Amino acid sequence: MSKIDQNDIFMLQRMANTLRFLCADMVQEANSGHPGVAMGLADVASVLSYHLNINPKNPKWINRDRLVFSGGHASSLVYALLHLWGFDLSLQDLKAFRQKDSKTPGHPEYGHTQGVEITTGPLGQGIANAVGFAMGAKYAKNHFGNAIIHKVYCFCGDGDLQEGISYEACALAGHHQLDNLIVFYDSNKITIEGDTSIAMSENIAQRFIAQGWDVLECDGHNFLDIDSKITLAKQAKRPILIITHTTIGKGAVGLEGSHKTHGAPLGVEVVRESKKALGFDENEKFVIPDDVLMRFRNVCERGVATNKIWEDENAQAILQIQKWQENDFSKIEYPSFEQGEKIATRVSNGKILEAISNKIAGFLGGSADLGPSNNTTLSSGDFPKGKNLHFGIREHAMGAIVNGLANYGLYLPFCATFFVFSDYLSPSIRIASIMNAKVFYIFTHDSIGVGEDGATHQPIEQLSHFRAMPNLKVFRPADANENVACWKLALQLQGPCMFVLSRQNLEVCTPKNQDVIHCGGYLLKENKQASITLVASGSEVNLALRSAKKLEEEGIATQVVSVPCLDLFLMQNAKERQEIFGNTKVLAIEASRSFEWYKIADDVVMMESFGSSAKGDDLFEHYGFCEDNIIKRAKALL
Amino acid sequence: MSKIDQNDIFMLQRMANTLRFLCADMVQEANSGHPGVAMGLADVASVLSYHLNINPKNPKWINRDRLVFSGGHASSLVYALLHLWGFDLSLQDLKAFRQKDSKTPGHPEYGHTQGVEITTGPLGQGIANAVGFAMGAKYAKNHFGNAIIHKVYCFCGDGDLQEGISYEACALAGHHQLDNLIVFYDSNKITIEGDTSIAMSENIAQRFIAQGWDVLECDGHNFLDIDSKITLAKQAKRPILIITHTTIGKGAVGLEGSHKTHGAPLGVEVVRESKKALGFDENEKFVIPDDVLMRFRNVCERGVATNKIWEDENAQAILQIQKWQENDFSKIEYPSFEQGEKIATRVSNGKILEAISNKIAGFLGGSADLGPSNNTTLSSGDFPKGKNLHFGIREHAMGAIVNGLANYGLYLPFCATFFVFSDYLSPSIRIASIMNAKVFYIFTHDSIGVGEDGATHQPIEQLSHFRAMPNLKVFRPADANENVACWKLALQLQGPCMFVLSRQNLEVCTPKNQDVIHCGGYLLKENKQASITLVASGSEVNLALRSAKKLEEEGIATQVVSVPCLDLFLMQNAKERQEIFGNTKVLAIEASRSFEWYKIADDVVMMESFGSSAKGDDLFEHYGFCEDNIIKRAKALL
Repeated sequence: MSKIDQNDIFMLQRMANTLRFLCADMVQEANSGHPGVAMGLADVASVLSYHLNINPKNPKWINRDRLVFSGGHASSLVYALLHLWGFDLSLQDLKAFRQKDSKTPGHPEYGHTQGVEITTGPLGQGIANAVGFAMGAKYAKNHFGNAIIHKVYCFCGDGDLQEGISYEACALAGHHQLDNLIVFYDSNKITIEGDTSIAMSENIAQRFIAQGWDVLECDGHNFLDIDSKITLAKQAKRPILIITHTTIGKGAVGLEGSHKTHGAPLGVEVVRESKKALGFDENEKFVIPDDVLMRFRNVCERGVATNKIWEDENAQAILQIQKWQENDFSKIEYPSFEQGEKIATRVSNGKILEAISNKIAGFLGGSADLGPSNNTTLSSGDFPKGKNLHFGIREHAMGAIVNGLANYGLYLPFCATFFVFSDYLSPSIRIASIMNAKVFYIFTHDSIGVGEDGATHQPIEQLSHFRAMPNLKVFRPADANENVACWKLALQLQGPCMFVLSRQNLEVCTPKNQDVIHCGGYLLKENKQASITLVASGSEVNLALRSAKKLEEEGIATQVVSVPCLDLFLMQNAKERQEIFGNTKVLAIEASRSFEWYKIADDVVMMESFGSSAKGDDLFEHYGFCEDNIIKRAKALL
Repeated sequence: MSKIDQNDIFMLQRMANTLRFLCADMVQEANSGHPGVAMGLADVASVLSYHLNINPKNPKWINRDRLVFSGGHASSLVYALLHLWGFDLSLQDLKAFRQKDSKTPGHPEYGHTQGVEITTGPLGQGIANAVGFAMGAKYAKNHFGNAIIHKVYCFCGDGDLQEGISYEACALAGHHQLDNLIVFYDSNKITIEGDTSIAMSENIAQRFIAQGWDVLECDGHNFLDIDSKITLAKQAKRPILIITHTTIGKGAVGLEGSHKTHGAPLGVEVVRESKKALGFDENEKFVIPDDVLMRFRNVCERGVATNKIWEDENAQAILQIQKWQENDFSKIEYPSFEQGEKIATRVSNGKILEAISNKIAGFLGGSADLGPSNNTTLSSGDFPKGKNLHFGIREHAMGAIVNGLANYGLYLPFCATFFVFSDYLSPSIRIASIMNAKVFYIFTHDSIGVGEDGATHQPIEQLSHFRAMPNLKVFRPADANENVACWKLALQLQGPCMFVLSRQNLEVCTPKNQDVIHCGGYLLKENKQASITLVASGSEVNLALRSAKKLEEEGIATQVVSVPCLDLFLMQNAKERQEIFGNTKVLAIEASRSFEWYKIADDVVMMESFGSSAKGDDLFEHYGFCEDNIIKRAKALL
């Protein structure tokens, strides 16, 4: 239903201009930021305020519309809106834009500022996050019926749509005919290097139609046009792109349409002149007329009322939803493995996923077309009815979609591919880590153990990359038993967890129920007289045990420490480490190029080059992951 | 011009089936590999053999057609063709498919096997590489006229086209109307998880038309149809997609069209039955009938002859080309900087790029829409006439395109973005590193020094990631003088080099012309009596100098080591390091989460978390990169 008419236009103009100058003032005050996009989108944002169903007094209301600004550089607009809509963000917070410890950092950050649905940051992430939200809503609707009937709105720009991740995500949105997804493409024809025509000549409408979307177009500075297109979009049967023609820096005297408004303050003089031109007091900053504030706050009043009605009408569904959100991990019946059993950790992990999924309603996920290899296919059937997400060969969108699912409020999502292809989604893993989002990564084929597929398919540097990523916990279990123990811990931890798993069979060589995993590593083979400690992760733990046995046959007392999570182990203090290592020399062993072991080890047997194509066993031997070499290196240390 | 007619069909069928069974035998012999795609494409590859202009006796002929198999898992087909066409690859090599030290690894590797134009490996890379080749050819044609008039052929599959990088690269190919690019889309409707319909419902023809391509369709098992479409494609005015409908595993009795043929051997029995069904001796393996071999070898004869004519007709252009290929770095007139001058390394680097470009004809590149910020815009004008490549906001395609340019045979390409967005192209950087391709990465905004843009824009883990990548050399110069020294070295080195540069001004604090850079680091401030060494890179070197001064004021003799390239420094042996560090304690300082310093340092002042939004100077102080903290940590070590 149309929300505005001719009579609203005068007020909308005041609303939009108030937004414009709030943003211009914020950027000017910070002397840093991006005024152009905020001023360009002020008109659309004002109209959207008439449509949006959110409740600033209950920001986590599960049936709220989700709003994602894919271009996080529009942060001044985001903050201005959140303040005007009535979220817990004061005018003082707006004045502290981009300052240390403020609630208003340079790009919006989830968990840091109320009302921000997700950390977007780098271009392209947000539109894929929005697809994740829309998938989450679709799955929820299948389970909770009309209790979940909200929309997902997303603003994106030329940059977002040039990024590959946007095509991947939109292909999937079209494939699933996500009728709850409305994307505004802020087409202002300007990027940092100049006019978009220097690098872009795609027919955007045709592109989205090819991907199964409907496409509308509107003048982003014509309120009635904007309103009518939003109204149409809300009735859609498939995802909708609204190509919104705007002028970057709209309202900035002398700079409208210029890329100079993109990434720098307009300048005090331009701000003054612009205010004057639009009937605002040029001497005042951060002005919000009362009637404008009242009109924006309608969003809040409307939201509170709608939320109340929703609660009254959906009592039963709400109980169900709360049950989903409980995530009672104590119910999970984990599979059991026996010492000596030979099983790849990708296989044991598959059994664990199924066990978790059986008890945790919101645990769902899938692979980028490697389900049969990653062992991630659940018995529950395919999305949208079942829990299996077929992402297609779209790793990057997969990473951003699970971020959206994680923030949706109902799900504990996982995603999967070969470890070497983790590179493709690492930008999204980074965002999950910044947000401390509870996402699980299942990365199989974890080393040169991949074998014949060769160098391009053998991860070498990935462990170091992800261990250097703050907040993320990387688990590389030695066998099926550790695999279970790692999951028990990971489910309890805050933030994202990554499972790095073997393609090849690994003999079960650790005891069941290690409760020592929370330190990241533990003494697997004790020897009080040890002069050397072999410390390893994953498939190399068994090698360490075998090498220790041989060393002891030669009279060298040896202990073995298994470290399924080096991130946690490195967090231990020197005293805790001393308790484990005593005065032994420490030799780390890992089939990866992992300099990080040097923090605790005197020497590291690691990969010094990329891998190559041959049988996995041959490669381990060739690159020094064999008893002979370990013994040689251990002796050299002593 | 059409190359075949009805009379050739009998022979083509024999050629294609020979290819099929060679591939099936290779995979069966290795008991590992991907027969399906090879058998599905055997017909197209046979017809293409009539069109291709290459010279197996002069594999580096600059005017050869380039052929890229984007799906590197089609390797058996690649090797079979290279052998049949007459490259230096024997039947014995085919029999050693996927074995240790063979010339025929699991995925084709550039530099390892003659005739392989580029290492593709992960899906999506190859099609973007092909765009790079086509851009290289277009630029060359602008300079050498009709001496460079070849085509770039590429085979890709559903997986390649689902990957975001393929959209990015094809958008750019359409934008530049690359009329020399012919892509076969092997549409076999099968991916690993099953029928493509589980995750893909895009209209591929419409998608490519939206990106400015022409689209043809053909039956991939109808020789005349294939030939006529190739013939049409060669006359195109823009890039061409030939949607080639094939059956995966074509010819495999009982398994045609099944995803079971994708990633595993067919099985001895199926291979036998399939041979029988197509009139081949079921008991023989690796059979190449003489007439079939002769027909394939026509490629070689034709190539030798064409190459000769080309040489005769283009004597002058060839001289010019050879001059380009010389790359006489001694001619470069580097800019000069004075002690105390304050200049960001991104700015000094911009001057250096221009200096190199002025003397090195094939030195070209650009940014993913951050030219003005990366300082990478050259004075030579825009591609295809000038050297500036506007990649648009397409980092991943940029990475793969420069790989194509590097392998083209004429260019020393660079590409650029903010360091934090290096994540977006890291899969392509990995391939460059595997190939040892001479690509230069210009990554500015290298640390929390980015300031107000906040956590999503501040690199933290990237240095560790790329330092863990074999072959790649990462340079993080302390100032403009080191920046020059690093470039002098980088141009001489084999393999890819990365420049990690500051956004903020850095005072020039190192002497000119450091020839010690080749060790990766050097004693910047000597003190024979030192009890502690401060070792740092980039913007932290100046901090180390200032802290050392203060430490000495407090009576603690201190030396400072600058390490612009930790990769090289870590390669030094213990004795060489001992010469620098003596018996001092070593404290490393780097505004990054860089555990790798622990290999040489007793303690590391590093980032322990993601960054945040505030002024850069405030952030350095906040995270401990200030004199007080360095002094505290130094004293704690002593």
